[in-house]
Amino acid sequence: MSKQQIRIAVVGLGNIGRYAIEAIENAPDCTVAGIVRRQVTELPARYCVYKQVTELAELGQVDVALLSQPSRLIPEVAAGLLSRGIRTVDSFDIHSEIPDLRKRLNAVAQSHGTAAILAAGWDPGSDSVVRTLMQAMLPQGITYTDFGPGMSMGHSVAAQAIEGVEKALSITIPLGTSVHRRMVYVELSEGYSKEEVETKIKSDDYFAHDETHVIVVESVDALKDVGHGVHMSRKGVSGCTHNQQLTFDMRINNPALTAQILVASARAAMRMAPGAYTLPEVAPIDLLPGERDQWIGLLV
Amino acid sequence: MSKQQIRIAVVGLGNIGRYAIEAIENAPDCTVAGIVRRQVTELPARYCVYKQVTELAELGQVDVALLSQPSRLIPEVAAGLLSRGIRTVDSFDIHSEIPDLRKRLNAVAQSHGTAAILAAGWDPGSDSVVRTLMQAMLPQGITYTDFGPGMSMGHSVAAQAIEGVEKALSITIPLGTSVHRRMVYVELSEGYSKEEVETKIKSDDYFAHDETHVIVVESVDALKDVGHGVHMSRKGVSGCTHNQQLTFDMRINNPALTAQILVASARAAMRMAPGAYTLPEVAPIDLLPGERDQWIGLLV
Repeated sequence: MSKQQIRIAVVGLGNIGRYAIEAIENAPDCTVAGIVRRQVTELPARYCVYKQVTELAELGQVDVALLSQPSRLIPEVAAGLLSRGIRTVDSFDIHSEIPDLRKRLNAVAQSHGTAAILAAGWDPGSDSVVRTLMQAMLPQGITYTDFGPGMSMGHSVAAQAIEGVEKALSITIPLGTSVHRRMVYVELSEGYSKEEVETKIKSDDYFAHDETHVIVVESVDALKDVGHGVHMSRKGVSGCTHNQQLTFDMRINNPALTAQILVASARAAMRMAPGAYTLPEVAPIDLLPGERDQWIGLLV
Repeated sequence: MSKQQIRIAVVGLGNIGRYAIEAIENAPDCTVAGIVRRQVTELPARYCVYKQVTELAELGQVDVALLSQPSRLIPEVAAGLLSRGIRTVDSFDIHSEIPDLRKRLNAVAQSHGTAAILAAGWDPGSDSVVRTLMQAMLPQGITYTDFGPGMSMGHSVAAQAIEGVEKALSITIPLGTSVHRRMVYVELSEGYSKEEVETKIKSDDYFAHDETHVIVVESVDALKDVGHGVHMSRKGVSGCTHNQQLTFDMRINNPALTAQILVASARAAMRMAPGAYTLPEVAPIDLLPGERDQWIGLLV
């Protein structure tokens, strides 16, 4: 790539942020502009080549801010950066709040002449693109999204936040037709019983609607594996023709894929008109580096 | 839908054209503007509600022309309509010629302020979108597209065009890793031997590169079934993380799906800036009827 590189600031250096740095390093058209954190602290040697700051403005030119932070922080952080004219991409994953967040970020982005791509992980994200395509191919029918087996980051964090839980790991088990079982492995805090913790977990909104099993273990870390997956299926009707069948399957390292999709979205954000977009609103070819022409012969 | 209907002219009334009429009739936002044919002839009663003409101009307002004709006719017909300011959609399927056709139609469409979506069936078409998405998710790796088992329209027509073949049906059998077997069922014309027909079929460019078996049958029609399918897979790398696995599978009535995607593309053509586009260049949400807002809550 002889063209100018896209300078991406990684905001937050958790799981996703670390994988995002790998994805940026491996992208022919992107460069890490630096790392933005709440506090500058000592980092593993691997990250020492990058400037670490608490204020994005200190990084010089930044084309896109890649937000690798907990979903609940995204609305404020994204709106703040957009209002300073910085493009943002995030993997905000609270499905029910996406339409409102999109409206809010769209207004900010448009009034500051910049662009955001939100909810750009794998679900919401690439799965949303597949669901949209399936809907277009078979306008009548039912789409099922079956997650797992795999570790749910959101549910693990929710379980760990419960009083009496020292550490938690929530595994999503697909039971088919979009019904899931939650297997929650916990280390108990001192002085708490399995029964009281189990009752609290099962009444938490994250778990109350699914079959949930709580298992006390010695070491949650010994069970951890960030592999995940999804099976999506739609059986439906094209025109008047029934029994059309589509499926999409995935077995993946969860944060690695999320980070890769965020980097592809950063590229797309460079190409969008001012506004905020979810992934089905982006032409898929704009997720790829380089010129469209070079891909059309290969992929179409 | 209270909004104004998209008026679609169906150009050609072969297999795809007939299924396209069903798809338009079932679309909440589209109406059949009429049928354009080389010659006006008597049609089954089912089509009598529609005006049948040889010149599209006789149909009054037409928003989009849906071209359901053999691929080799598409370039001329599409360019002609675009130069009269009419949007076109087609399922042109000669993969190697798509980049050139796109350039040619793009120039015509731009200079006449209209839009075309080309190669918009399932392969090329929806499969191209999936391949593009897979490429974005796993930038390094190999994608395999395995077709079938199912009837290949193009190969059946090619076999039937060979001297000594009265009727032909070519079935595509997937052998994995994008390698295919062709099972060609033929009725012989009088005075021809199996051996001479088999030699000609196997040396035809459509068949010369694949393992091909020719079988003489009494009745090709007795074997016909337009069901088809595809298995696409990509194993590759997100960032530095290997062994990420994606698959997409489909079992479908071939012309029904092609027609449905053409109708969805007609809708998208109404929303595109002047120019010619392949399906990965279209935001998937634009393939759906109505407003984006209503879909984002459902699909993202």
